[in-house]
Amino acid sequence: MTHPTDAQRRHDPAVRGFASDNYAGVHPEILAAIALANDGHQVAYGEDQYTEHLQDVFRAHFGPQAEAYPVFNGTGANVVSLQALLPRWGAVIAAGSAHINVDECGAPEKVAGIKLLTIPTEDGKLSPELIDQQAWGWGDEHRAQPLAVSITQSTELGTLYTPEEVRAICEHAHERGMLVHMDGSRLANAAASLGRPFREFTTDAGVDVLSFGGTKNGLLFGEVVVVLNPEKVRNIKYLRKMSMQLASKMRFVSVQFEALLTGDLWLRNAGHANAMATRLAEAVRGIDGVTIVRPVQANAVFALLPREVSERLQKRYRFYFWDEHTGEVRWMAAFDTTEADIDAFAEAIKEEMGRTA
Amino acid sequence: MTHPTDAQRRHDPAVRGFASDNYAGVHPEILAAIALANDGHQVAYGEDQYTEHLQDVFRAHFGPQAEAYPVFNGTGANVVSLQALLPRWGAVIAAGSAHINVDECGAPEKVAGIKLLTIPTEDGKLSPELIDQQAWGWGDEHRAQPLAVSITQSTELGTLYTPEEVRAICEHAHERGMLVHMDGSRLANAAASLGRPFREFTTDAGVDVLSFGGTKNGLLFGEVVVVLNPEKVRNIKYLRKMSMQLASKMRFVSVQFEALLTGDLWLRNAGHANAMATRLAEAVRGIDGVTIVRPVQANAVFALLPREVSERLQKRYRFYFWDEHTGEVRWMAAFDTTEADIDAFAEAIKEEMGRTA
Amino acid sequence: MTHPTDAQRRHDPAVRGFASDNYAGVHPEILAAIALANDGHQVAYGEDQYTEHLQDVFRAHFGPQAEAYPVFNGTGANVVSLQALLPRWGAVIAAGSAHINVDECGAPEKVAGIKLLTIPTEDGKLSPELIDQQAWGWGDEHRAQPLAVSITQSTELGTLYTPEEVRAICEHAHERGMLVHMDGSRLANAAASLGRPFREFTTDAGVDVLSFGGTKNGLLFGEVVVVLNPEKVRNIKYLRKMSMQLASKMRFVSVQFEALLTGDLWLRNAGHANAMATRLAEAVRGIDGVTIVRPVQANAVFALLPREVSERLQKRYRFYFWDEHTGEVRWMAAFDTTEADIDAFAEAIKEEMGRTA
Amino acid sequence: MTHPTDAQRRHDPAVRGFASDNYAGVHPEILAAIALANDGHQVAYGEDQYTEHLQDVFRAHFGPQAEAYPVFNGTGANVVSLQALLPRWGAVIAAGSAHINVDECGAPEKVAGIKLLTIPTEDGKLSPELIDQQAWGWGDEHRAQPLAVSITQSTELGTLYTPEEVRAICEHAHERGMLVHMDGSRLANAAASLGRPFREFTTDAGVDVLSFGGTKNGLLFGEVVVVLNPEKVRNIKYLRKMSMQLASKMRFVSVQFEALLTGDLWLRNAGHANAMATRLAEAVRGIDGVTIVRPVQANAVFALLPREVSERLQKRYRFYFWDEHTGEVRWMAAFDTTEADIDAFAEAIKEEMGRTA
Repeated sequence: MTHPTDAQRRHDPAVRGFASDNYAGVHPEILAAIALANDGHQVAYGEDQYTEHLQDVFRAHFGPQAEAYPVFNGTGANVVSLQALLPRWGAVIAAGSAHINVDECGAPEKVAGIKLLTIPTEDGKLSPELIDQQAWGWGDEHRAQPLAVSITQSTELGTLYTPEEVRAICEHAHERGMLVHMDGSRLANAAASLGRPFREFTTDAGVDVLSFGGTKNGLLFGEVVVVLNPEKVRNIKYLRKMSMQLASKMRFVSVQFEALLTGDLWLRNAGHANAMATRLAEAVRGIDGVTIVRPVQANAVFALLPREVSERLQKRYRFYFWDEHTGEVRWMAAFDTTEADIDAFAEAIKEEMGRTA
Repeated sequence: MTHPTDAQRRHDPAVRGFASDNYAGVHPEILAAIALANDGHQVAYGEDQYTEHLQDVFRAHFGPQAEAYPVFNGTGANVVSLQALLPRWGAVIAAGSAHINVDECGAPEKVAGIKLLTIPTEDGKLSPELIDQQAWGWGDEHRAQPLAVSITQSTELGTLYTPEEVRAICEHAHERGMLVHMDGSRLANAAASLGRPFREFTTDAGVDVLSFGGTKNGLLFGEVVVVLNPEKVRNIKYLRKMSMQLASKMRFVSVQFEALLTGDLWLRNAGHANAMATRLAEAVRGIDGVTIVRPVQANAVFALLPREVSERLQKRYRFYFWDEHTGEVRWMAAFDTTEADIDAFAEAIKEEMGRTA
Repeated sequence: MTHPTDAQRRHDPAVRGFASDNYAGVHPEILAAIALANDGHQVAYGEDQYTEHLQDVFRAHFGPQAEAYPVFNGTGANVVSLQALLPRWGAVIAAGSAHINVDECGAPEKVAGIKLLTIPTEDGKLSPELIDQQAWGWGDEHRAQPLAVSITQSTELGTLYTPEEVRAICEHAHERGMLVHMDGSRLANAAASLGRPFREFTTDAGVDVLSFGGTKNGLLFGEVVVVLNPEKVRNIKYLRKMSMQLASKMRFVSVQFEALLTGDLWLRNAGHANAMATRLAEAVRGIDGVTIVRPVQANAVFALLPREVSERLQKRYRFYFWDEHTGEVRWMAAFDTTEADIDAFAEAIKEEMGRTA
Repeated sequence: MTHPTDAQRRHDPAVRGFASDNYAGVHPEILAAIALANDGHQVAYGEDQYTEHLQDVFRAHFGPQAEAYPVFNGTGANVVSLQALLPRWGAVIAAGSAHINVDECGAPEKVAGIKLLTIPTEDGKLSPELIDQQAWGWGDEHRAQPLAVSITQSTELGTLYTPEEVRAICEHAHERGMLVHMDGSRLANAAASLGRPFREFTTDAGVDVLSFGGTKNGLLFGEVVVVLNPEKVRNIKYLRKMSMQLASKMRFVSVQFEALLTGDLWLRNAGHANAMATRLAEAVRGIDGVTIVRPVQANAVFALLPREVSERLQKRYRFYFWDEHTGEVRWMAAFDTTEADIDAFAEAIKEEMGRTA
């Protein structure tokens, strides 16, 4: 890109870390798509031709009844979705580790008055049995009514639901009058890891509404509220606008998803990130004193190693402590993580472990 | 841009209309800036180097105490700002025609529980006298407490506040214990038209917090909450996150504003749009049966002409009826509107008027 | 009542004023009813025998489909009702002078995120024509959707809707997909003045949900959300609880309404208050310099007189300025206002007017 | 009370149960106080002489800086209090079993957008160590900021905090920038059981704001938000009104508290209820197959016995299952529970246990 601009490059584009998949930038095919949609006038607020076409893009993946509503970010996708599932007096059942519970500054409660009924889990996954800890009290007005379940695929702990597990949860929920939301900010990573089309573990498994993530898979910005059960999940357009998630130049959100989902860019990006996480896990498994503490099923690796080693490592590579108490750390791979990045990082871990011994 | 992508161009980039300045696309210098900030990893959620530098960019325009908080859109900027000005029991005084009142699906009320105390105006502008219609009742708990005033610059009706008018409003408000928000989704148009630096009619005039617009001036997306009075306006970072307006890959918002505001791109874009509106107003003033009904001070032209003429025109060019009852129409010029566009549109108006006569 | 108590009488029970009908105390028949329901245990939160019977009481007045939900106060009744009529993105059309707009500290917005679309009126009354000022924009997500109309009977300005006027509003609203709420904090005064049974201007006229007032008509406390259209107005029980309006010892609210509505206590109290207002209006009409500025149709009298006279009068009798700008005052009669009170007050007005001349 | 009324007695005043202390009615001294405050006009909404005097009543118990704001019910007192402690982005730490979490239909979230950070406990009591499970993340905008702690005295599980325990919690909270709310819907039971004046375990222990309960201790209705730290806890009057908790005829709330707290009525009522719970616990301790499962420190008894026995017992006496899974039941004593009630109930338990064996 040689067009002049008054902005300046302020960072070293060769530096990558393991802190988060949204520390990465934009995939070049996505930038190309944005440029393609540029110039001329298009109706704002979603009546453009890219957003119109986006409906076909999502229907191809999620079935003919699917409806796609682009929004700005994952918090927005989640809170818009949950508002569509819940009356004013409703509550949503979620894992204690769910992003909607721990990482959104209370947005569900504060923006929409939604009560969360949370459940502690080992691995970030709910099950019918776990859900039953909170699924009770219907008809009793003293209890916020549990009328929705929210699950995350892949979870915040890097684990996956099989299609069968999702189906069991949806059936359990539906039998009790509850609808199901899936937080899919890393849905592509899940699909790549499972080796199954999206709809097998969403639409076909009974999920009613989905937050489909793009940002963590190489987009500049953008997520999509995907309505899978339009009979039960309605009025997203009003909820999106009143929740301040309606983009004016929506064509540029929609065209990114077209670029991601028309061919296999979504799979290339997510599959690569998953593979890099696996490569990292394998590289460090042999290092004495480093333990991989959770299954590596998507693009996250959780590890235990001496705290001072982690702190020294953090001076060389960005990553986060996941649990300040135990010293557990989280390493995320992104679409742009290279094999060389992984190998160098694994080498650095070895070095710093050696300095400790 | 020749990088391959699976997305396809779906629109005719030669077609432009007069419906809204956010029907336009992205200025090429802005796209170049986005590309410049790409590649490599940058800390998400605003701790990147572009957002750090953005503070200097905004301080250069708004004074050394200014703080810049990028958000997704104008509704977000307004509602985040207003929450910072108001306690839970507070109300904001605004013109009845204000965007926060008529065009945000009730987001201030619904997201933040903010009561609007509205005032009918002739031209979209408040004044100390008008404000006094609602500025009363402090200490009376039966009345939502008027603790903020919100004005729009340039207004939704295409009019402008002079620096002196803004100052009078701010002094009036401050004397009564109210803080002042300015909705500046078209602040660049105002500055270009007034021929005055931003700070003369914002910081120096006493405005406490500002929604600074980028989208309507050539950005892909993005607005900035600019705190001008950091002693009184605090905790934007929490309000932004809980209001679902925190971009993960914020570097791409910040670098757009760097490109817009470091040199004169903001002025070129806004000044051009204003000039095109003026050109249009002048071109149609001579047409019998067409009346320009409001002062053309920024990039909007409001006109009265026979309804059937407007309806025929709408088949050729996109634009909106502003008032269904009177038939008043609004024509907006954008940064990419050309002289040829204006001349052709004026010609079309003449033609359609002629077919009526 | 001679039972000992550590509390002491701290006021002069002979003093009455004209400030508000809720400055009055409790009618002795109401206190007797409370005592009757006392002693022994009754299920809390509305499953008691008095609340069960209350359903019959309200059905006798409002028709066999009516449902009665006691709440604490009028603000609560209004906000619970409106939440039942509106989805999250809904707005309610109301007169600018409506209590829900000006006298509830923004509770509808702050507790429930409800946007008010207000209309200036001469006399506090809406009409189909006035409603149309705000009844538009359905389907446009930029506008909070007008899905309810709220009217007050008798109005905050002491005026009345005829049954025909209510019916016209309800038909107009229903044809446009809007439901109708009536704020009936003084519904008994309206019925007494109209000389018509409640249901003629509520159920039979098409009102969907009603706030039925008791406090201003002699109760200790308590209002009732009366659902008149149970097909459209649902789930009040959840809304009441989450809105903090569910009384634990509800039997004592219900038995008060039983005492009020089983015989003619409601009519005696309201009819008397109305008569006292009329007596006052007639007594002052002859006084030079005093103008009755609004029709006296219920228990309120609005008057214009010299401000200094009002201020001297206020040292002798409690009442309020209604409009600080014009000096208009409001005089309210209550169920316990006596003819002697009126005559003495009229005499005082005459005296103070005389001291001015 | 022989005054005529159209209401009828519909219940047997001799029947009492063990379901809840708010199944009881009104203490006769309270009814006498209400009658005393009746007749004549008093300013509405809290400017009456009874509410003025109430300030002295509460200062006598809670110290000279205390401020008393009567409200309708406990949910209202809690949510008004919490709003005063928390900014829009704040969260409150509470026990998982807290009434604000499990028994208010999500009112804190729904009315006020408050996020609850809950902690599982054995006995309903928090401690500095337990609080630390949730007391972290200040400055991180992704986490709703923990800025308040709420404890219940006596707890929902019938247990008590000692003054020292309250002080330790308050010091711990204050050191971390958190304020402390105490839900005292049964504060009188706590004081009676501890044998200590209220202020020792509230004001003097560092509590910032208190929900003081009256309804469960013999009032008709009414609770009081008691501000103990007026430097930090402000603007209750606005929060009370906008939260729909402002009683118009407030004199009748205030005079009840005067009657309760001026002499020793509060202590007689609460001490008696506590004694009746102890009597019950002692009476059943000897019954084979019945286990008292929690310490009996106030007026609640929690027991385990065969489920079919409980179900047979429920046909004779009202009470609730506390935990449907384990079959644990809760028996509450009230101010009007008699020794004969206890003895007869214990006898009934024995009988039903015998029918099982």
